Amino acid sequence: MSTGTKEHFKGKVLYLNEVATRDGFQNEAAFIDTDEKIVLIDRLSACGYAKIEVTSFTSPKAIPALRDAEAVMHGIKRVPGVVYTVLVPNVRGAERALSCNVNEVNLVMSVSETHNRTNLRMTREQSFAQLRDVIDAVRGTGVAINVSLSTAMGCPMEGDVPVEDVLGWMQRFAELGVQGVTLCDTTGMAHPAQVRALCESAAQAFGALELTLHFHNTRGMALANTLAALDAGIVRFDASLGGLGGCPYAPGASGNVCTEELVHMLELDGYDTGVNLAAVLDAAALLPGLIGHDVPSQILKAGRRLDLHPVPELAQGMPVQRAFS
Amino acid sequence: MSTGTKEHFKGKVLYLNEVATRDGFQNEAAFIDTDEKIVLIDRLSACGYAKIEVTSFTSPKAIPALRDAEAVMHGIKRVPGVVYTVLVPNVRGAERALSCNVNEVNLVMSVSETHNRTNLRMTREQSFAQLRDVIDAVRGTGVAINVSLSTAMGCPMEGDVPVEDVLGWMQRFAELGVQGVTLCDTTGMAHPAQVRALCESAAQAFGALELTLHFHNTRGMALANTLAALDAGIVRFDASLGGLGGCPYAPGASGNVCTEELVHMLELDGYDTGVNLAAVLDAAALLPGLIGHDVPSQILKAGRRLDLHPVPELAQGMPVQRAFS
Repeated sequence: MSTGTKEHFKGKVLYLNEVATRDGFQNEAAFIDTDEKIVLIDRLSACGYAKIEVTSFTSPKAIPALRDAEAVMHGIKRVPGVVYTVLVPNVRGAERALSCNVNEVNLVMSVSETHNRTNLRMTREQSFAQLRDVIDAVRGTGVAINVSLSTAMGCPMEGDVPVEDVLGWMQRFAELGVQGVTLCDTTGMAHPAQVRALCESAAQAFGALELTLHFHNTRGMALANTLAALDAGIVRFDASLGGLGGCPYAPGASGNVCTEELVHMLELDGYDTGVNLAAVLDAAALLPGLIGHDVPSQILKAGRRLDLHPVPELAQGMPVQRAFS
Repeated sequence: MSTGTKEHFKGKVLYLNEVATRDGFQNEAAFIDTDEKIVLIDRLSACGYAKIEVTSFTSPKAIPALRDAEAVMHGIKRVPGVVYTVLVPNVRGAERALSCNVNEVNLVMSVSETHNRTNLRMTREQSFAQLRDVIDAVRGTGVAINVSLSTAMGCPMEGDVPVEDVLGWMQRFAELGVQGVTLCDTTGMAHPAQVRALCESAAQAFGALELTLHFHNTRGMALANTLAALDAGIVRFDASLGGLGGCPYAPGASGNVCTEELVHMLELDGYDTGVNLAAVLDAAALLPGLIGHDVPSQILKAGRRLDLHPVPELAQGMPVQRAFS
């Protein structure tokens, strides 16, 4: 009782998808060497994730940071049990991904029309038609299909996104036979009560789909939103090592929910994330050297809850009664 | 339903205590001019807080940043209905505070022996004896008494702090007739399940005490912990403008829970914080100029959830299909 862990949480199994090398790296200005990417992903493979979103088979012109998608996929060592997924925007991308023997393709479109036009340069109907072609190309190959719905909890240009729209797009993809849908809070607009309500509605309507939540920490709410999703029964979460990733509409703000902060909180609360926190922290500590700048992760600076500190020397002349609360 | 706010939250009234000018400023290396402090506090007085912790009547040698406590207290304009509280470490401090006509004194000691010795240079029993003298001096003056219990959710040097110890110190202060107790997560060690359990135990045992929670965001969990405390029925929270404040044991990590992020989340979730978010954001925007460095607040960079962005020009040659999720 002294640690306060609630019994009903004990050991509940969660499924974490590490997205740093896709959603994080695509956002970096400098190209990260293919070999360094492979070393990092191999380390991540040993951390216990359920899934790793390795890279993106988008056009090298669109995202030059991930122009080495094939080389990365061929270079990494696959750990049995880990699902290796990649982002695929179109049939050409799907063909490239299939040639690399991926376990899953992750398709993406926005729930809001304006964001879809900005991010993908198409109407939503054009995106849907294109993704339907991808699904047709992948179906029957044994490769799983997940659809990430961006701006599912708000659009930075349109504002509120109706729950009915989210459920409507889920319905259309469910009818195409996809295995999973990820609801993405692309620019960190979600708040806990909203998350709880949306997750309850989505889980109730689509019990057969694997439902994943993808949070950004743009306004500090990512971990709070995770709690709300857990309350609604969600067990699958995207997260990004170091909190990499970001939002072009909030320069300087935090990016995706930070893997090591998510795992730290969830393990303390009694969940079984499958992920080895110490190994993840070791991997996260490599990021600043790899990308050339600091990362949003707080826990990388502060250490884990029980990484204790020595008692300071009470030096002569030290201020007394500083009274920090 | 499209915004997802749960009906049972609607309009639940919360009581926020702004601690930036005490818990935040005491942590700043540079002295902030008395006049600038007064201007800021007068702005905060117009924001709708239930309480403002204005300053600290500690020794000017211990906390030179707050050596102007009397001048600040005499200089600010009091807004009826706002409780003006100050930190008081001893009888001398209490006398200074009473001479300034404060509404409340806030006493502080740590639940863990090692932190109390480090922070206050006394054993806990010595602290308790000193605070009992303060309570004796203040009782009967009409000035309210609150006790902030530091390290109530973990000690950075000892580790876990037993719930029984927290409840034991609450009991001793309750017997002395204090009106309120604040449970402080001094170095951001609390996690949600722990918070929920501690708050439930404390609220059950001490229903007559005003119970306040004081979170730090050292490991990113401050807003998640706030949700857990709300679940346990807590309605009083400390928060710090800009996320000022901090923890000497986690250099570079975030400080106290950020007022504007807390208010933003809680108002979206349907709570009534009493606080005007726009006014708080305007005040927070002054901080970097006032203290000479950036503040941890994410929302100060990203804006509120519905601070929408213009649709970007789709310039020639712009990358297509960037596929941010």
